[in-house]
Amino acid sequence: MAQEKKLVEAITSMSEDFAQWYTDVVVKADLIAYSSVKGCMIIKPDGYAIWENIQHELDRRFKATGVQNVYMPMFIPESLLQVEKDHVEGFAPEVAWVTHGGLNPLQERLCVRPTSETLFCDFYKDIIHSHRDLPKVYNQWCSVVRWEKETRPFLRSREFLWQEGHTAHATAEESEERTIQMLNLYADFCEEVLAMPVVRGQKTEKEKFAGAEATYTIEALMHDGKALQSGTSHNFGQNFSKPFGIQYTDKNNQLQYVHQTSWGMTTRLIGAIIMVHGDDSGLVLPPRIAPTQVIVIPIQQKKEGVLEKASEVCERLGKTMRAKLDDSDKSPGWKFSEAEMRGIPVRVELGPKDIEAGKCVLVRRDTREKIECSLDEVETRVAELLETIQKEMFERAKAHRDSHIFDAHSYAEFTEIANNKPGFIRAMWCGDEACENKIKEDLAVTSRCMPFNDQEHISDVCPVCGKPAKKLVYWGKAY
Amino acid sequence: MAQEKKLVEAITSMSEDFAQWYTDVVVKADLIAYSSVKGCMIIKPDGYAIWENIQHELDRRFKATGVQNVYMPMFIPESLLQVEKDHVEGFAPEVAWVTHGGLNPLQERLCVRPTSETLFCDFYKDIIHSHRDLPKVYNQWCSVVRWEKETRPFLRSREFLWQEGHTAHATAEESEERTIQMLNLYADFCEEVLAMPVVRGQKTEKEKFAGAEATYTIEALMHDGKALQSGTSHNFGQNFSKPFGIQYTDKNNQLQYVHQTSWGMTTRLIGAIIMVHGDDSGLVLPPRIAPTQVIVIPIQQKKEGVLEKASEVCERLGKTMRAKLDDSDKSPGWKFSEAEMRGIPVRVELGPKDIEAGKCVLVRRDTREKIECSLDEVETRVAELLETIQKEMFERAKAHRDSHIFDAHSYAEFTEIANNKPGFIRAMWCGDEACENKIKEDLAVTSRCMPFNDQEHISDVCPVCGKPAKKLVYWGKAY
Repeated sequence: MAQEKKLVEAITSMSEDFAQWYTDVVVKADLIAYSSVKGCMIIKPDGYAIWENIQHELDRRFKATGVQNVYMPMFIPESLLQVEKDHVEGFAPEVAWVTHGGLNPLQERLCVRPTSETLFCDFYKDIIHSHRDLPKVYNQWCSVVRWEKETRPFLRSREFLWQEGHTAHATAEESEERTIQMLNLYADFCEEVLAMPVVRGQKTEKEKFAGAEATYTIEALMHDGKALQSGTSHNFGQNFSKPFGIQYTDKNNQLQYVHQTSWGMTTRLIGAIIMVHGDDSGLVLPPRIAPTQVIVIPIQQKKEGVLEKASEVCERLGKTMRAKLDDSDKSPGWKFSEAEMRGIPVRVELGPKDIEAGKCVLVRRDTREKIECSLDEVETRVAELLETIQKEMFERAKAHRDSHIFDAHSYAEFTEIANNKPGFIRAMWCGDEACENKIKEDLAVTSRCMPFNDQEHISDVCPVCGKPAKKLVYWGKAY
Repeated sequence: MAQEKKLVEAITSMSEDFAQWYTDVVVKADLIAYSSVKGCMIIKPDGYAIWENIQHELDRRFKATGVQNVYMPMFIPESLLQVEKDHVEGFAPEVAWVTHGGLNPLQERLCVRPTSETLFCDFYKDIIHSHRDLPKVYNQWCSVVRWEKETRPFLRSREFLWQEGHTAHATAEESEERTIQMLNLYADFCEEVLAMPVVRGQKTEKEKFAGAEATYTIEALMHDGKALQSGTSHNFGQNFSKPFGIQYTDKNNQLQYVHQTSWGMTTRLIGAIIMVHGDDSGLVLPPRIAPTQVIVIPIQQKKEGVLEKASEVCERLGKTMRAKLDDSDKSPGWKFSEAEMRGIPVRVELGPKDIEAGKCVLVRRDTREKIECSLDEVETRVAELLETIQKEMFERAKAHRDSHIFDAHSYAEFTEIANNKPGFIRAMWCGDEACENKIKEDLAVTSRCMPFNDQEHISDVCPVCGKPAKKLVYWGKAY
């Protein structure tokens, strides 16, 4: 009954109400359920399977660069959180505090980690002594808690899943190199696996991470023209190693402070996938991340031989890809809608006449194109189709993104774009935080990043104050 | 420097002080570090890699039985924890309480999950309506918190990692079947992967899980003769579905309460591996769980061609197993000790003379046996050796376990064994909790389980009260 009710209620259309469309998809595609803990979500099997695929692929790429996984405690003593001043100011207002263990009050309050820089620093202080102990390139997969007031599934919730990498290096060059290396790894992952184009760049001073010397980011554009920060990589320099006293003796037997980085990606990426690729029929998953890549749906399955053949086809496909058979007693039309809602990249339709003719029909989720296919070739054809879909989904998302980047040469033009054209605004910036603040106050637009590619200069003056400007900034409304 | 200090201090011998030996191994084999949060540990890369292997193999076996992974919030509202009476009584005294979110006190306290029965019940109540929604076979990988007073790395810590499976079924038969299925899966995993023999059985009423109708357990014997509960599987019957109101309409359109189970395994298994297989030189890891299965150690590595050959051999091995090369500038003897401390199943020694003769030396970690091996055959020989080691480690552990099971026919005999012979004590039991309590009070021995194999009757009377006894119980001192 529950399942039937679910699909009868159509989802809101994107153009009508994007926020409601998003919430509908998240729930009706069975990715999450709301829990009895305000602001915390339950990630259901279909949602968690996407996260498992993200984890698996990111972890593989991490390990190829020498990352080692560890696990740190989920609690941080209040005094430890306070060691680095900017950091505690940034996080203390939004942490959850544990005050009692069992029936007794604790001597010192513990916060549930909002991020683990302080724990890693405390650890590194104990295990780093010599230059031979460096670098340390550790990562952990865990959940973190930030007591947000407004929450939305995947995008902003009080508890979310992530990975946090924390590294320590002998030199400033090495830590900068690792910071950029991980940002690029994130960007490549988004583009190659999630089919999601990103802009790589540096955050302004105002927008950087609490305690960082420099924060780098990848910014993606959602279908409604809003930006989503999709991964960040921070170079701390010696901002943490000095207050925490993380020192090593170098080759000349001199004591030096280490240089550190941290970098993270979260379940927010699932929100990004939904908002970059989804449509009015639900999710559209890139094949490389889809828990089910192809679903076989028999037509007139009660006719002799249909279910057997469908099952055989599914088994053959299952040898090289993630394949499922829908042999439930629902109608084929119902199954099609369900497969669309869940974003399965390819469905194979197979009825008695198809079987007689030795063929089947492949249907692409992204374009809905129908393709006749000989049953003998089904594995290779579906495999090729998955590659094509992956490639074309990226190209479509990139074309959409590129057509939503607007250049502003004056403040009037900036205002006009901010008010009427959803997307990224590219404009020069003098570097003065006052101009950045004015834009944010006037137009509810924030600086997303200063792109790495310095060639992208579009003028020589800041559109706000008119002073000389050397930096290009991508601005946008953001999640 | 830190690394050199580590191995110079030899570890305490097992026979001298088993508890200290355990702590030494855990720290010196680089599995954990102590953190600034009392009772919480840091799992270092070598420790976490073992957990990753456990996760990977268990998860694969779970999924083969239809388990789906989800993620539930880490917080439980106090009112939700209180819904099932036995459950809250069992856990409330040892939970950590969150009382503040950011700067504000919470309206209702939240406990950090000690286990998630209540959250799953709250969820199932919302998503189960019809018999077609059943069964639900969900699992999550996460950390849980129990505010223990005495803690020991892996064995008992305030935060630990685990998986918790929670299922809902239409009938009592199905839930009993799933409970036993998962217990057997756990037992097979321990025996086949961890090379650790276990006794499968049921817990007494006194020892069962808070809220369960029946708790099943696998119990392993550590090298010091103490028992370690290594995995449990609970049948809840309708104990939770009734207070939580989890109902479905059956095929006759009648409302029924679901039948539920839960089952879990934890990072405690790493403690078990250490205490079942370790020796006075450190860890001894079963090949199937070892993060590094074979390490290649070059002798006189500065001589021309040695490092190249060692590297080539490592690369060849790496194609089919987890292989590493130790090309650090430490002495070979030092490298041998380190590889032994870390429990690497096989090391390959390779010097200039070996290379000239086209051979190398394989050394087993478990028996220290040295085996000459032609370089041409190194992959197949090492692969065979890993199989042999896995098999023989299990056989040795089983022989040790079997030689430490003692039958007690009278209370005098029971007392004599409890005081003088470390191991399991098998004795009949009348079923009266008073007798169970007397044994615990007099001898600090607890009932570990009532084995499934009912044939193991050793007498007809309870050694405590002399009344007729039909149940055999394994008793022991336990971690």
